[in-house]
Amino acid sequence: MASTEPDSALGAAAAALLGDRRLIIATNRGPVTFTAGSSGVPRPRRGSGGLVTALGQVGRHVPLTWVAAAMSEGDRRAAEDPKLLREAAGGDDRVRLRFASVERSVYEQAYNVIANPLLWFLQHQMWNLPERPNIDLGVMRAWERGYVRLNEAFARAVVAQSRGNREPRIMLHDYHLYLAAEPIRRARPNAILSHFTHIPWPPSSIWQTIAPPIREGIARGLLANDVVGFQTERYAHNFLRTVESFVPKAEVDYEGLAVHWKRRTTHVRSYPISIDVEATRRVATSRAARRRADQLLGGTREHVLVRVDRLEPSKNILRGFLAYEALLLRQPRLRGRISFLAFLVPSRTGLKEYGDYGRSVQNAVDRINARFGRAGWRPIQLFYENDYAQALAGLSIADVVLVNPLVDGMNLVAKEAVVVSQRDAVLVLSETAGAYDQMADGAIPVAPADVVGTADALALALAMDPEERRKRLGRLRRGVEREDITWWLQRQLEDLVSLAT
Amino acid sequence: MASTEPDSALGAAAAALLGDRRLIIATNRGPVTFTAGSSGVPRPRRGSGGLVTALGQVGRHVPLTWVAAAMSEGDRRAAEDPKLLREAAGGDDRVRLRFASVERSVYEQAYNVIANPLLWFLQHQMWNLPERPNIDLGVMRAWERGYVRLNEAFARAVVAQSRGNREPRIMLHDYHLYLAAEPIRRARPNAILSHFTHIPWPPSSIWQTIAPPIREGIARGLLANDVVGFQTERYAHNFLRTVESFVPKAEVDYEGLAVHWKRRTTHVRSYPISIDVEATRRVATSRAARRRADQLLGGTREHVLVRVDRLEPSKNILRGFLAYEALLLRQPRLRGRISFLAFLVPSRTGLKEYGDYGRSVQNAVDRINARFGRAGWRPIQLFYENDYAQALAGLSIADVVLVNPLVDGMNLVAKEAVVVSQRDAVLVLSETAGAYDQMADGAIPVAPADVVGTADALALALAMDPEERRKRLGRLRRGVEREDITWWLQRQLEDLVSLAT
Repeated sequence: MASTEPDSALGAAAAALLGDRRLIIATNRGPVTFTAGSSGVPRPRRGSGGLVTALGQVGRHVPLTWVAAAMSEGDRRAAEDPKLLREAAGGDDRVRLRFASVERSVYEQAYNVIANPLLWFLQHQMWNLPERPNIDLGVMRAWERGYVRLNEAFARAVVAQSRGNREPRIMLHDYHLYLAAEPIRRARPNAILSHFTHIPWPPSSIWQTIAPPIREGIARGLLANDVVGFQTERYAHNFLRTVESFVPKAEVDYEGLAVHWKRRTTHVRSYPISIDVEATRRVATSRAARRRADQLLGGTREHVLVRVDRLEPSKNILRGFLAYEALLLRQPRLRGRISFLAFLVPSRTGLKEYGDYGRSVQNAVDRINARFGRAGWRPIQLFYENDYAQALAGLSIADVVLVNPLVDGMNLVAKEAVVVSQRDAVLVLSETAGAYDQMADGAIPVAPADVVGTADALALALAMDPEERRKRLGRLRRGVEREDITWWLQRQLEDLVSLAT
Repeated sequence: MASTEPDSALGAAAAALLGDRRLIIATNRGPVTFTAGSSGVPRPRRGSGGLVTALGQVGRHVPLTWVAAAMSEGDRRAAEDPKLLREAAGGDDRVRLRFASVERSVYEQAYNVIANPLLWFLQHQMWNLPERPNIDLGVMRAWERGYVRLNEAFARAVVAQSRGNREPRIMLHDYHLYLAAEPIRRARPNAILSHFTHIPWPPSSIWQTIAPPIREGIARGLLANDVVGFQTERYAHNFLRTVESFVPKAEVDYEGLAVHWKRRTTHVRSYPISIDVEATRRVATSRAARRRADQLLGGTREHVLVRVDRLEPSKNILRGFLAYEALLLRQPRLRGRISFLAFLVPSRTGLKEYGDYGRSVQNAVDRINARFGRAGWRPIQLFYENDYAQALAGLSIADVVLVNPLVDGMNLVAKEAVVVSQRDAVLVLSETAGAYDQMADGAIPVAPADVVGTADALALALAMDPEERRKRLGRLRRGVEREDITWWLQRQLEDLVSLAT
């Protein structure tokens, strides 16, 4: 596969799957959202986020219909305005943009009661279980009147888009849309349906703590797909065990990675997501990014340690700083000779857990800077803003990149770091990040709660000789170049052809 | 097996395993502890706890040497005084009592830094991961200078007790002693060694968060045993996957339930622990307990709901009360006609998490009593004391017993409840309790975080017709009578004979 020209391989897979059909993709967040402009006319704004970026590539290769949730009033209005949608999607018919529209209160319940506080926290194992969650009447109502209905609205929109097509090809995405396949399957029994979960799939014992209608609904809902995809083999295995636990009559084939249920077969596969290597390099080598890299480098010392993360608890930012503190304590000669640049992107700032965590992080930074800092040397430089080019600039000048999440579906920063590095950066990577499975042969592993081990790993990385750094980075970079975003998509299309047609 | 007279079957298994040897058991907490009396002479006090009670039975059947940790100054002094130990063990030589003695600071590090705050919380998945644990230098030091040394001291004591015996039979217990088998094996290569973990064994992804020297040390340490036992098949499976994750060269046989490593085989089995049915009944039918049962009954209404638990977060007491509140809200006709007796035993009152949790529980009880209570009717009656006979009295008069832990190695209250019930109690039982695996055919299941589902289960239990109650309780009771504490021990002895000799 490595020797094939990737775009043509992708094109071939797409042609084999689609024929003269369009590919239908459904995601919560679409490539464009609309704000209700002051004139009353909704105005388009390009969406952000890894998923949008990744799927945005797809439209370059195949004709695409993209169904997203109407998240704002502007979206809900735009949903009724074909001309506006066509313009926002680029003007030609290559990418068609559609909204699954539900009342605001329905969406709020799906998104702000079920998807984010419940499923996201559950799947990242971020709960303090003695206290949360409480599956109370409010949660069960939000499940039935929010999450279930939103998924039905998605199914209706997808079915409407496949009118006249008895065998549509549909790719559903992520934890907002676990239930959409079943109603689509009822309306289009011969559809080829896949679902990909971008976040971790935890062991079934984690699912066992929550209400049976939710966990069983999700497991059964996913089994209406032909292929169910996860970031890693471990998550795929966890899913198989979850099905075994909660869908009593399903027959689980651990060897063949499939579930047989109700005279249908669902294939369970892992497709580690990746980045668009070209696009990432383009940003990192832009004039603005290079200028910023020079500026940053001017303010740093001999060793440059970098992290880039959304500021949120699962990223384990606090223990990263504690490990750095332990390192400065243990190796006094590093003081004054190392700079830790932390690029932290604001995230879900309205959530109490996130706000509290942000304050703990800031306090740790202040404490460590006060403890070790001296005139002209600040041990940690914090950048709290959403500036992608600056973050890539930071990664490009790093000697060591620290990526130590508690748990992470994939983690694309690890992949960006090895692609943009100008200094053969050493990657220190959590074993519990999905990316670790692909990057174990080049990264230095850390267990996320192990502050001592993380300090050891940083010390090892900083002391690594240039030749070893070059070799490791080379291996990692070639891996990301080979297994890039096109490869991720191509493998799914190929599997849909061979497994589902 | 059910048709065999259990004591004789146990005796036969013991004879086959032991020959003329003594059985050596090692546990953290022994059957007797010593307080340093005012005269300076240590005074014995019988230990408590399920493990001590269970293993105490063993001494009735086989000659036994019991090695426990010297937990107090009295223990450390008694360790040097053979006469005192002999008296405390009953005066004859049937049970020999020995202490593994280490300096107080060593024990404190093993017990109060590693075993309880780290391993117990880890294995019960009770962490709020973004904050804890921090495996810092203090923890790593406590591991090396506390936990490792305590286990070495146990090994020395066990080896000393097996002097002159080249093939001693040794049973190690629980999460305090994961490392003892390896040094014993070095000194007595032909020993027959088993280890039983009384608490849950979580998925390997949970172990993956902590420091490699700890998780790998534990996995390798356990593989020095011939048989490694767990409460449930799920925990045994989780252990196999943990070994696969952290002992790279070990060959894991999921079908044969064994690990092959370093030219040795370790068999991995589940032995659900149980109660001494006779002894439990004896206490429950004592005159004092029956009088207490009558008193309690006099203070209750038509329906009696009972729970018995140590007051601690993993028992999920708070959500139990929230479910009861939801039930009173939904079924107003229950108000004034139901009594919830909660027997809560003080536990680890010095730990902040436990203290905070206790206050939350008390606040919930006060709130619910204030909200629904009226003259002459208190919705919840809380008994906060360690009174075993009273707790059994409470269970004996229950219509419904609620056992809804977040996670629990086994949970013996569920088994006591069905043995002492005088009113065909319905058992509402968490699917995440180890006991659920044996009791699924009679209990009403609940998912622990599911407050709505728990309220539903309580409603179902309260409305169950007498015939169905009788049948369910009969099934559950026969199960516990058949698979009692003797059965638990006998199966282990039999496996040691067939798998290890």
